[in-house]
Amino acid sequence: MTAHRLAMLGTGLIGHFYTVTLHGQRGRDTVHVVYSRSEDRAAAFAAEHGIPIGTTKLEEAIAHPDVDAVLVGLPNHLHEDAIALCARHGKPVLCTKPLARNGEEAKRILDTVEQAGIFAGYLEDLVYTPKTLKAVAAVQAGQIGEVTWARSRETHPGPHSAWFWDAAQAGGGAIVDLGCHCIEIIRSFVGKENRPVEAFCWADTLVHPIEAEDNAIALIRFESGAIGQFEVSWTFRGGMDLRDEVAGTEGTIWTNHFLRTGFELFSTGEGGGYVAEKSETVSGWLFPVGDELSELGYVDMFTDMLDALDHGHEPTETFYDGYVVNAVMDACYASARSGRWEPVQLADWRGGSVPRIARERRQHDGHTLIKEERMPDGRLKLILKDERTGEFADVVRDA
Amino acid sequence: MTAHRLAMLGTGLIGHFYTVTLHGQRGRDTVHVVYSRSEDRAAAFAAEHGIPIGTTKLEEAIAHPDVDAVLVGLPNHLHEDAIALCARHGKPVLCTKPLARNGEEAKRILDTVEQAGIFAGYLEDLVYTPKTLKAVAAVQAGQIGEVTWARSRETHPGPHSAWFWDAAQAGGGAIVDLGCHCIEIIRSFVGKENRPVEAFCWADTLVHPIEAEDNAIALIRFESGAIGQFEVSWTFRGGMDLRDEVAGTEGTIWTNHFLRTGFELFSTGEGGGYVAEKSETVSGWLFPVGDELSELGYVDMFTDMLDALDHGHEPTETFYDGYVVNAVMDACYASARSGRWEPVQLADWRGGSVPRIARERRQHDGHTLIKEERMPDGRLKLILKDERTGEFADVVRDA
Amino acid sequence: MTAHRLAMLGTGLIGHFYTVTLHGQRGRDTVHVVYSRSEDRAAAFAAEHGIPIGTTKLEEAIAHPDVDAVLVGLPNHLHEDAIALCARHGKPVLCTKPLARNGEEAKRILDTVEQAGIFAGYLEDLVYTPKTLKAVAAVQAGQIGEVTWARSRETHPGPHSAWFWDAAQAGGGAIVDLGCHCIEIIRSFVGKENRPVEAFCWADTLVHPIEAEDNAIALIRFESGAIGQFEVSWTFRGGMDLRDEVAGTEGTIWTNHFLRTGFELFSTGEGGGYVAEKSETVSGWLFPVGDELSELGYVDMFTDMLDALDHGHEPTETFYDGYVVNAVMDACYASARSGRWEPVQLADWRGGSVPRIARERRQHDGHTLIKEERMPDGRLKLILKDERTGEFADVVRDA
Amino acid sequence: MTAHRLAMLGTGLIGHFYTVTLHGQRGRDTVHVVYSRSEDRAAAFAAEHGIPIGTTKLEEAIAHPDVDAVLVGLPNHLHEDAIALCARHGKPVLCTKPLARNGEEAKRILDTVEQAGIFAGYLEDLVYTPKTLKAVAAVQAGQIGEVTWARSRETHPGPHSAWFWDAAQAGGGAIVDLGCHCIEIIRSFVGKENRPVEAFCWADTLVHPIEAEDNAIALIRFESGAIGQFEVSWTFRGGMDLRDEVAGTEGTIWTNHFLRTGFELFSTGEGGGYVAEKSETVSGWLFPVGDELSELGYVDMFTDMLDALDHGHEPTETFYDGYVVNAVMDACYASARSGRWEPVQLADWRGGSVPRIARERRQHDGHTLIKEERMPDGRLKLILKDERTGEFADVVRDA
Repeated sequence: MTAHRLAMLGTGLIGHFYTVTLHGQRGRDTVHVVYSRSEDRAAAFAAEHGIPIGTTKLEEAIAHPDVDAVLVGLPNHLHEDAIALCARHGKPVLCTKPLARNGEEAKRILDTVEQAGIFAGYLEDLVYTPKTLKAVAAVQAGQIGEVTWARSRETHPGPHSAWFWDAAQAGGGAIVDLGCHCIEIIRSFVGKENRPVEAFCWADTLVHPIEAEDNAIALIRFESGAIGQFEVSWTFRGGMDLRDEVAGTEGTIWTNHFLRTGFELFSTGEGGGYVAEKSETVSGWLFPVGDELSELGYVDMFTDMLDALDHGHEPTETFYDGYVVNAVMDACYASARSGRWEPVQLADWRGGSVPRIARERRQHDGHTLIKEERMPDGRLKLILKDERTGEFADVVRDA
Repeated sequence: MTAHRLAMLGTGLIGHFYTVTLHGQRGRDTVHVVYSRSEDRAAAFAAEHGIPIGTTKLEEAIAHPDVDAVLVGLPNHLHEDAIALCARHGKPVLCTKPLARNGEEAKRILDTVEQAGIFAGYLEDLVYTPKTLKAVAAVQAGQIGEVTWARSRETHPGPHSAWFWDAAQAGGGAIVDLGCHCIEIIRSFVGKENRPVEAFCWADTLVHPIEAEDNAIALIRFESGAIGQFEVSWTFRGGMDLRDEVAGTEGTIWTNHFLRTGFELFSTGEGGGYVAEKSETVSGWLFPVGDELSELGYVDMFTDMLDALDHGHEPTETFYDGYVVNAVMDACYASARSGRWEPVQLADWRGGSVPRIARERRQHDGHTLIKEERMPDGRLKLILKDERTGEFADVVRDA
Repeated sequence: MTAHRLAMLGTGLIGHFYTVTLHGQRGRDTVHVVYSRSEDRAAAFAAEHGIPIGTTKLEEAIAHPDVDAVLVGLPNHLHEDAIALCARHGKPVLCTKPLARNGEEAKRILDTVEQAGIFAGYLEDLVYTPKTLKAVAAVQAGQIGEVTWARSRETHPGPHSAWFWDAAQAGGGAIVDLGCHCIEIIRSFVGKENRPVEAFCWADTLVHPIEAEDNAIALIRFESGAIGQFEVSWTFRGGMDLRDEVAGTEGTIWTNHFLRTGFELFSTGEGGGYVAEKSETVSGWLFPVGDELSELGYVDMFTDMLDALDHGHEPTETFYDGYVVNAVMDACYASARSGRWEPVQLADWRGGSVPRIARERRQHDGHTLIKEERMPDGRLKLILKDERTGEFADVVRDA
Repeated sequence: MTAHRLAMLGTGLIGHFYTVTLHGQRGRDTVHVVYSRSEDRAAAFAAEHGIPIGTTKLEEAIAHPDVDAVLVGLPNHLHEDAIALCARHGKPVLCTKPLARNGEEAKRILDTVEQAGIFAGYLEDLVYTPKTLKAVAAVQAGQIGEVTWARSRETHPGPHSAWFWDAAQAGGGAIVDLGCHCIEIIRSFVGKENRPVEAFCWADTLVHPIEAEDNAIALIRFESGAIGQFEVSWTFRGGMDLRDEVAGTEGTIWTNHFLRTGFELFSTGEGGGYVAEKSETVSGWLFPVGDELSELGYVDMFTDMLDALDHGHEPTETFYDGYVVNAVMDACYASARSGRWEPVQLADWRGGSVPRIARERRQHDGHTLIKEERMPDGRLKLILKDERTGEFADVVRDA
């Protein structure tokens, strides 16, 4: 049994969630050092979470001899330097999403860790929600046939820290903040072997007084013909809307991770307090989540990451995945500017090649069978095509 | 009290729904003549619905002296001729959706009825579902602020008559069949005054052995900046998925018209029969709809149409609306071919001009207030921007 | 085509719903006279609904020569006299629920109309909701096997007129107001031939400063062994909770008539107005109903009633049903006082006798097969009983 | 950091769930010894879960020097002896639910562990579901005011091991199997200080060929006037229905733990396998649960238990709670026989005394204010009672 001692870089909301997850339940792993750019925040965070050491010295946190792995929970523009330090000190590194501000930066980060030969995990929590894990397993088992479409939606009223709103630090707006989740969820459903070929994106700043996009919708076309679709917004009202939908040739999957999970509370507002992340009200009908850390994937994510580290194999989500996500986002931004499909630039494609989704070719009495349907009166209707003449005909058969 | 006697042209599923609606409950109006291209179907339909006259003669049906209005429920390529006959005989005409196979044909139809001065209603039932009517009223009352995004989704395993599958007769595939509903729902939410400026569309034939598209997704950009989004499919598994989502600056609307309406039935399969339109199974968990005719808008649609006819004003859905819908679909098809945004060609735009969605401009202590959020510990966090320096800052205030 | 002219007795909320339903959509029937105990309310109601005659004279309203049927929408203690007048004048009568304040009064009313030979319909709207009609049809078709349990729940924050709160006028509290609906819904599911044998009831006044019960729960045991269960409350928070659940040997039905019907609206409160009957808020997450009149059964109820009147047969809900409901409520009140099961006193039982729910008797290898279940590893587990020894054993079989 | 080594007594489904939970995620605790009455099952269970020692010797398992706590997952009739052995060897013991077959046996068990002074935890997992924990916290914070009613429902098609079906071994049927969960959930909501005064219960064997009850419904009256209600069944069709509802003077809570948790999957049946505990089908609409162990409370339960053991305080669920649950079930069985309310016999009541739920006493213009309601036209309606005359009146005020 390996019990890890980690360094937590960053004290924002994500650092809080990571630390609470690791220290939660009967976990064996602990955060041993916390780094913040602010001395006050480092001390407060250490005190709040029972962390032995709080520091403002980045390299000392990483290099601390008692630390055997590093969690990067810093703003996007600080990832590269922090990871380079991990590489220099040979420390395993787990980095929050997105990996970088763009594909080029992501590729440099990827090269850095691969050249150093350190373990590197990409902390894409939403791929690890218990629902997503089970849904992806159902897809892989063939329960919905071939995936034709995957929609991932993440919208809320806007992020909780100033740097998110600053495109210079973040690398963009709602796409960089939220789209990275969606893209990796979509890839998990359509298959990571399935190359993202091109992307189309609309992005606009509709409501907030900022430069970055506060709304975007994108389509991603994969090699198999499958379509990924993401919708992100910083202007959604009503809480945090986290839903995925997957269509396959043999089935359908709908998951709802936050606002409708079987927990409904009406309150006149008495005794009200914190309801859930990004909840807007404390009275009326409220929709809390049972265990946010579990439902949002943090628990299963760290299990996968640290088990992989212990057993010397790759985690489900790697820095290579982070690089692909950044490359798709680059194509989205390019498309939002050009107004057309833009290719996903992946100089380093490690997936294979997948065939086109198979078209049905069923025959009936020498004709192509297009469809059969039970009518209200119980009879069966067949729609047939005569491939010689090109004509379509209805045939109704008694029950 | 005016009790209308109508001619029903066509005996397909839509003709069945129209007739059952008109003859249902305690309605005062009746179908007096039914026309079909097949003598057998005309006779069978007349017998089933207690219609006095069944005929295969189109003009006789329309011109019949006891008929005071005509319902067009024919395949798309037969609309224009039938409507021209109504115009010639001065008969009010109600035409099913889509109005035509393309914008040009729709414009000719529109001109025909306007030159003849006849009453013309566009039978877009899904704009009239009770939920949509109330949701649109809520939007118009300002309950969700300015609309930023409207998603309309209609998907099922494919249509029930052969001609739908034949692009020559139908004018296209899933877009023409289902997208027309979605476009008009979207227009109802973003406002009919709000000009559809351009459209982007992906379309593909993924599963069925046909030429027409069996899946499509489109974005429609309106003058206000609002985005419409439709998703249509003939390959969805699980029944008929009819959902709309609307985002506004002050709220959100979600409607589900078919698969999740508060009616859930598990059956081992004993005694099973018809569950609902396009249902795929008769055992396991089933999701029937209470009153399909009411829930799908047929009841309120005919009330609006025939009341408008009685009182001499326009119905909510006119042939002009049908023309706009066809023009948007034309742009979608053009975009699906070109891979870029394509303008919506509307030579005849009757809406006005609407302003851009208003951006928030709130101030706090001389800075721009980007956002305020209640934190888990009860404190209030403000995100502020200094417009001089371009810097963003977090400010946390005690509860 | 018969177009009825009705007299509406009473101008409360129920009279409003009845009139709006009859005058709604393309209905052929009209309210011709309205009676109120108050001259002002009679005039205002007539004006609001376009009713030719408003009056404070009860008998004149009933006897008016242009009136061919009477709607009783008066407080409970005024039903008997009004119906007696209908009988005297030979007018068909439709009476709101409950029929009377107790079984004895209901029996007198039943005898009165039967002796006069007039048509009499019991306006139990919730049996006619489109979902209930379809669910009852599914039960009758055998889709859920034999019904073992039916739960009907109606709760809200309390009624909207003063007389409901006065046990002397109403005959009781939440049981009389709401339980009457539930009992008839339950009877529709377990079968009207199935005699209600005994009832157990808890009732209490927990919150409101009144004498009548504001909360009650009851069990009704039917001859087949099936159990009905109702829950009524005038202290529920969050709107109006109208749900039914039915368990059968081959399936399950869940219906939700009001708060979760596939229509969800979040609003910050801008432009807010009326949301739905008994809604408590105009901001936050709201759950409107598409068409309340249709969803609550008023439309189908009047269709059944007036079609039955036209065709000379009994409606689905008769005064005999109203009498049975009152008898069950009497047993509930008796039980609430005695703390034990009390027999349902039905001097006049017109249903037949039904057999006990059939117990399964499946054999496997000479043992009784209790259950089979698929295990997580795919194997099938059988639970068997040896009837000679009385011992139970697990047998696991490979998939 | 204490890492426990536990002995697992029993290798049934509950032992499987316990072990998988403890060994899951990054947990620090491990099962070190497993006991089964069957040598084969002991060996297979040990191999499956990587447990060092499998044995058929009960006392050796408990007394093993490397074991510092014992998990009792045996059939109900074997609890007492196993716990007595734990007491003899001074080992902390965690016992599955129900604690015993009846209150008398439970009291002896309670006395045994208290006299021995050992740590004893009652493994009532459903009180620990993340939703329940948060819902109970909301109630304790006052968010729904005073609790007036709590309904807990657990139904499925029947248990998975033979002994459950044998009343001699189990102590009863569905009540003992499922009602124990419900009673403790109800107590958690109405408050453990709130004495369960009396119970009413209906129980019957409707479907299965057994002696024990396969269906039961009970009401439990608490000292405050609050009513608990449980519904249990071994004949439910459609999966496992686990729902709770709580009504309070200021709000409402609805939780759904299994069949509707925001995860919906339609499959034609391709690639199908295990869906969820007690799921009945592998095609059609399916409703899996994300992480059953977390959602059913096992994770939080063991955290509470083992943290309590480490810190030397009592867990949330104690053997005293188990004793109260058995006492309530005894009253339910007595009532099912007598047909009347039966007192809950609690010789040892450790809760205090709580006041009656407070009735509202608001005044308006010298009258008692019964209710205020917003009408469809926006006006406010007050219902007032004149306490001198006993008369009720409506007063409508403009908006």
